[in-house]
Parts: sequence; structure tokens; C-alpha cells
Amino acid sequence: MSFISGFHPVETFLKVSPKKIKEIFLSRNLNKLKTKFFEELATANNININYCDSDYIKNIVSHEKHQGIAANVILPNTYSYLELVQFLKKNPNKKSILILDSIQDPRNLGACLRNALAFDVDLVIMNKDKSSPINDFVIKSSVGAILKLNIFKVSNLSRTIETLKDFGYWIYGLDMNGKSFIHKEIFSEKIAIVMGSEAQGIRNLVKKKCDTLIKIPMTRDLESLNVSVATGIVLYEIYKNNLIKN
Amino acid sequence: MSFISGFHPVETFLKVSPKKIKEIFLSRNLNKLKTKFFEELATANNININYCDSDYIKNIVSHEKHQGIAANVILPNTYSYLELVQFLKKNPNKKSILILDSIQDPRNLGACLRNALAFDVDLVIMNKDKSSPINDFVIKSSVGAILKLNIFKVSNLSRTIETLKDFGYWIYGLDMNGKSFIHKEIFSEKIAIVMGSEAQGIRNLVKKKCDTLIKIPMTRDLESLNVSVATGIVLYEIYKNNLIKN
Repeated sequence: MSFISGFHPVETFLKVSPKKIKEIFLSRNLNKLKTKFFEELATANNININYCDSDYIKNIVSHEKHQGIAANVILPNTYSYLELVQFLKKNPNKKSILILDSIQDPRNLGACLRNALAFDVDLVIMNKDKSSPINDFVIKSSVGAILKLNIFKVSNLSRTIETLKDFGYWIYGLDMNGKSFIHKEIFSEKIAIVMGSEAQGIRNLVKKKCDTLIKIPMTRDLESLNVSVATGIVLYEIYKNNLIKN
Repeated sequence: MSFISGFHPVETFLKVSPKKIKEIFLSRNLNKLKTKFFEELATANNININYCDSDYIKNIVSHEKHQGIAANVILPNTYSYLELVQFLKKNPNKKSILILDSIQDPRNLGACLRNALAFDVDLVIMNKDKSSPINDFVIKSSVGAILKLNIFKVSNLSRTIETLKDFGYWIYGLDMNGKSFIHKEIFSEKIAIVMGSEAQGIRNLVKKKCDTLIKIPMTRDLESLNVSVATGIVLYEIYKNNLIKN
């Protein structure tokens, strides 16, 4: 069983994937307006509501930031390396891939996924072992984007990048020592953008697989941006260029 | 007394503003490498170290995410409305202002400040009452940017915007119903960018004071981006245009 909690995550799940909610838990202390709001949404989707104490919700979700609401849900599927290969075979026209190398902070991961949806990324690939699991905080900060994206979790990013090259993708890695500024780069048609973790950047073995290392122009007062901000800027730059071209 | 904690915030403070650290608290359980690292930095700056239990640090900073280190610091000054007016009189060549309307999440606030430093914003203005206080989390997510920026806290953003207009600034507000896309806008030379909170956007009274409402191009799958991501994208776009022009 997987539980999510909080107004926004539960509301988003109710609106985007109501069939993946098994039941809802509402605190008896929740204000009337909110209670009515969720009752109506749940009823419209034939979802059972359990009224309980706030402490009961705290116990099932294992933290205190639940705002008096939780839902027992089927978390969105993520897909494997083999499914990725199948997907690429069936969808040769997918043009834009985001690769997240070891993003461990769930809020950053969620915000990166939100960026991916905003800027029309076709699929997201992350490494299985060193990335944040998909939890409450990821769902919340992705504002539901996670329910709408194709997400693949692979064991070996280097091998996966080789496969993407075989399918015609040009691999860009964001790196502070990148050779080319993103606003000067002429991006290929089929691209994958690799973003590394804040602490470490892209891991060396993965970085070596990149075709071009790019960077964001900025003052010298800072070494880097927050990873979700950097991801947003790179994806925005590419999305905007495509808008201008088309 | 103000305490900050965690490796990054304390290290940043030690490197950027060592004179504003009164003393440091190190957990006896901290690993040798980290202990040595902070001992050397502290000694070089004549800062006293107190060795204590992890629980002691938890008590003084009031949370558990201290990583075994805390510092008693003088927090960076923020300035008032009257000081802002003085500053603008003395610095007529400052070209770029970021106005944050009611950003309550400390991590978002910190990331917005980090963006401001990265993209050469001259000063940041925020409203006193509804914004997050400057705390551990802001300092941490700003990665020290907060120690290098001129930050003004005012009671009345609408009045402040009127004053900025008197000083020749053109006021842009980011809004999902904005008329002009940021990549098509020709920005004035002296500008202030207003960003609203995630929940509410820019408050109506403040929005009415804006000269131009702008928006970020994105797919229709999402209503908005994380506020620190959106701030980063707008500031990047302007910074990059200035680079190309100059």
C-alpha cells in the first residue's frame, strides 16, 4: 500500500488519476469547506472516505505534514530499460528526453518533472539506485506532472545513453565546465539532456558518454544553480527555440 | 542570538562572512575529516569552537537536520523602505531589481535569491509581513547568496513600486495571464521583475501597479512552474539578452 497526503497531492490525484485511488482518509478536524470539497470529488469518483483522527493519518503516512487528508493509492508506473527500448522502437518521433542522474532530493526531483511536463519533454529517464524514490514529496512538488509523464528507471545510465545514441539522439550534459553556452548552442532535433545532482554534478562515467557539455551563462559569484532551476532554464531555452523555429 | 546549522550554511558563512560568526558548535560524533575541515576554517578566522553532544545542537537550532554543526551568527542585514530610497538616490545606475511578493516557502525564497545573484540582479525587495523570515533553510538554499545581496524588506509593495517608477524603473510582473511572452519582450534598461507566491501569484493590488504582465511560454499541461524555477527562467532570459547586446 502506498499513501500520499496533503491537499494538493490528493486533489491532483483525484483529478488526474481517480481510478488509482483506493480510499481516502479525512481528519474529523478538517474545516468544513475542505471536507465538502474532497467529499464531492471523492463521491463523483465512487471513492470511499474514512473519517478518522489526525493522529491516525499521521501514523499511516509517517509524517506530520498531511494537512488532515491522505489517500491510499496505486503509485504511477515507472518503466524498465527493456520497456524503454520497446518504447523508442514504437515511437521513433519522440524528440526530447530528460535524463536525471542521481537526483536525491524529492522536492528537486518533483520540480524537475514539473519542468519536463511544462516544456514538452517526451520521456524522463533516471537511475534506479541513487535517485529519490517516488514519494509524497515528489508527487507534491511535481504538482501531478508525475502522473502524466513517461518515466523510466534504469540500472545503468551509461548503457542507456549508448542505446539512445543508437536511436539517433544527441546527448547534452549540463556542466559548469561545459564548452558551449545554452543560448548559443544549435540543438539537434532528437536530444537527451543529462542533469546531475547538486552535490556532485553528472557522474564522471555518465559525463564521458555525453556528446556535448553545455552550460548556463551566469555571473562568477556563484558556482551553480539549484538543479530544478537549471533544468527549467535549459528546457525552457530549447522549448522556446522550437517555438520560434516552427 | 541566531543560529544556523548544517555543513553548507556554516561553510558558506565561514567563507563569505567569517566576522559575523560568534562561535561554532561541533558534535563530538562528527567524522574526523569534517571536524578537521571546520577546525581549520574556524582557527584561520579566530572563531571559538565548542565541542558538544548532537542533542545539544538539536536544542539550540530547534530541528534535527543540523548534521552535527551549528554556528551562532549575526544574520545579514536587511534594509528598510527609507534605506531603499537612499540607496536608489546614491546608485542611479542600478538596472535590475527583483521583487518577491509573499514568498513563504524558505527553500523557494533561498533559491530565488541564488538566482538573483547568478543573473546579476542589483537588489531584492520583499514584503515584510507575508514573506518567509530569513532562517537556516533560506541561507542553505540560497547557498550563501543571501550574504552577498542587497535585500530590502518593505511594508507596502505597492507604494514601493510607485517609488521605483519615480526612479525610472519599468515594472514587469510574471503572470499566467500576461500579455507578452518573455522571449518576445524587449525589456527596458532599468527594470524591476515582480514574482508572486505559488499559491496566489502576485497579489491583485500589486499586480495593478505593474507596467507590463509577462509570461513564460509552456505547454498547456500545467498551470505554472515552481516559483524559484520561474524566477530563474525570467532572470536568465534578461541576463542572456544583455550579454548578447553588450
